[in-house]
Amino acid sequence: MILASCFLIALGSLAQQQLGQRPRVKSPVVNTDGTVTFNFYDPTAQQVSINGDFEEIRGKRLEMTKQDNGVWTVTTQPLAPELYSYSLNVNGQRFIDPANSYVNRDISTLSNIFIVSHANDDKGHLYSVNDVPHGTLSRVWYDSPTLGQQRRMTIYLPPTYDGKKQFPVMYLLHGHGGDETSWGDLGRTSQIMDNLIAEGKCVPMIVVMPNGNPTCNAAPGWWHEGMYTPDGNAFRERGSKASMEESFMDIVKFVDSHYCTIKERSARAVTGLSMGGGHTFGISRLYPETFDYYGLQSAACRMPQDKTLFDTQMARLFASKPKLYWIAIGKDDFLIQMNTELRQYLDQKGYPYEYYENDGGHIWRNWRIYLTLFAQKIFK
Amino acid sequence: MILASCFLIALGSLAQQQLGQRPRVKSPVVNTDGTVTFNFYDPTAQQVSINGDFEEIRGKRLEMTKQDNGVWTVTTQPLAPELYSYSLNVNGQRFIDPANSYVNRDISTLSNIFIVSHANDDKGHLYSVNDVPHGTLSRVWYDSPTLGQQRRMTIYLPPTYDGKKQFPVMYLLHGHGGDETSWGDLGRTSQIMDNLIAEGKCVPMIVVMPNGNPTCNAAPGWWHEGMYTPDGNAFRERGSKASMEESFMDIVKFVDSHYCTIKERSARAVTGLSMGGGHTFGISRLYPETFDYYGLQSAACRMPQDKTLFDTQMARLFASKPKLYWIAIGKDDFLIQMNTELRQYLDQKGYPYEYYENDGGHIWRNWRIYLTLFAQKIFK
Repeated sequence: MILASCFLIALGSLAQQQLGQRPRVKSPVVNTDGTVTFNFYDPTAQQVSINGDFEEIRGKRLEMTKQDNGVWTVTTQPLAPELYSYSLNVNGQRFIDPANSYVNRDISTLSNIFIVSHANDDKGHLYSVNDVPHGTLSRVWYDSPTLGQQRRMTIYLPPTYDGKKQFPVMYLLHGHGGDETSWGDLGRTSQIMDNLIAEGKCVPMIVVMPNGNPTCNAAPGWWHEGMYTPDGNAFRERGSKASMEESFMDIVKFVDSHYCTIKERSARAVTGLSMGGGHTFGISRLYPETFDYYGLQSAACRMPQDKTLFDTQMARLFASKPKLYWIAIGKDDFLIQMNTELRQYLDQKGYPYEYYENDGGHIWRNWRIYLTLFAQKIFK
Repeated sequence: MILASCFLIALGSLAQQQLGQRPRVKSPVVNTDGTVTFNFYDPTAQQVSINGDFEEIRGKRLEMTKQDNGVWTVTTQPLAPELYSYSLNVNGQRFIDPANSYVNRDISTLSNIFIVSHANDDKGHLYSVNDVPHGTLSRVWYDSPTLGQQRRMTIYLPPTYDGKKQFPVMYLLHGHGGDETSWGDLGRTSQIMDNLIAEGKCVPMIVVMPNGNPTCNAAPGWWHEGMYTPDGNAFRERGSKASMEESFMDIVKFVDSHYCTIKERSARAVTGLSMGGGHTFGISRLYPETFDYYGLQSAACRMPQDKTLFDTQMARLFASKPKLYWIAIGKDDFLIQMNTELRQYLDQKGYPYEYYENDGGHIWRNWRIYLTLFAQKIFK
């Protein structure tokens, strides 16, 4: 037994290539009262602080205090249930917390994440992996004849998917600077869907998360351009054979021919955030009888200059009586004026839509909420 | 056009939650002569260096030099084609490079990665995503009756998988401290398989990468234990209902019933590294007529105390005439003695096996090589 343990320890230390070591501290520690303690070892540092997206410390750094053992520490006020992101600032420079291997990438920047949850019905719980049946998450390559590319997308299959029963499909579109990994990682899509399905709050469905950048085949590092530094505009100067909206039916055709889908309008929803909200807006006008549910989240929904074509498209769209045209945005979102103008247009025409407005701006916290709400409204 | 650009820039900066900013430097830069330049901005730092697994600087840090603009820099000697890992050391503390969002996790530690490639037939090219048809990579949950758990595994389907044609299956097992993500991330499995298949060097096959820790359902952060700090021994004290080897046929049964596999011994291979090599060793004795190809990579292949049972199992295994029993290890591997003893046993019994020995130790560089070699030996 002791021999076996020594062997395991030897394997453990050797399996991990030691590219520099540091004393182990635990960080972050989510305390039972909802406060969170951060720890960072650096006896020579002059100043260390935490930057985070906690509403409770919005806009200010959380200064850490050095203890005698060289460990800097700070504890937050109690935090509301949520998935939080943060980074360390050491002597004025931004780093991720070396004690926390859980990170999300947003464009080219990594941030650490942690979850605060107080109860089984709060957002922290909804964003966690719980002891419920789990769906399958796949990175799938499909052919886009319209764009002349092999392209990558992410597909969530519900836990009961067995290749025989047919399911409805939600198409879920990312924003500017994002890619086919964004909704899964930053948006916690598989966790939200697993949990909503397990609680009977939404219908089991397939979720398709394509790449919305027609000049990129896939997320950074996952296509033949190598490990470039993404900046949200990478490869845009190349131009593309068509727009995301124009190439969108390539995706629907692929999904319908490769998965057990219900191939009807009533079993198709499309929703997206920011640029993806703009894509949803465009898709709703281009293919009005393909989807029954539309969700514009913090949408870049600028109405086009050509008002005649726009009026025609919108008239055709609403004449087809979609079951849901949903607009969601935060009070502080920089796109709220654009969304207000769209709503004024819809009101003026008497086109029916649902509107949801909450606090906050153009941030993932809101998009996770919008996904949660939208998923419960569709296919019922 | 200008308006559209401003709008994109505004979206770009807002889509990314700014949790601290830093001046942009490009790092690493892989130069055309195979040297690599690292850059890091920190005008107040006293000492900055690079730790890396480059053979060329083995065991020593690469000290960086501060320039007048506050950017520390260093350029390596020309590096051989390879996927490299590194970290930054700033004033004695280990960090990942903030300019590089490409990271791999090994147990609980993140390291940055980059690839050096000089030609279309070198290792760097083999580990890159090239402009070839790509397979599907899925995270799949399966039921293990033997362990009494829902468990997660990674499945690679070859580009030509269409749900009709049947394919052979390679079971690919990770080492101590690893999980179902290790072979895909650190081992570059989907890149290696895509490229070998595209070049006609290996048969199109399904690759199954299960989780080899019977006390964990999935990789850290992907099951209901939350975002714990993995240490390679997490949850071991809980015990499990069975060992990895004893529960292994749950995986084979799931794969054969959910995927288009050739359900024959001649279309099944099993291989693993370190602890996973030990699992392969055990599986070869428990289910001798299930697999035709075995690959022990840097294997923890300690021969059991009970020599009578062992002799019986090994006699039965080799009487079944597997097509390949392959042992691969590096000269500097700390498990080489154990592998030598196994080979002496096989020699003494006259059991046929193939042996491959190369430079280096118990490291991913070697396991990527072993995967590449093994994949080309099987199903032919």
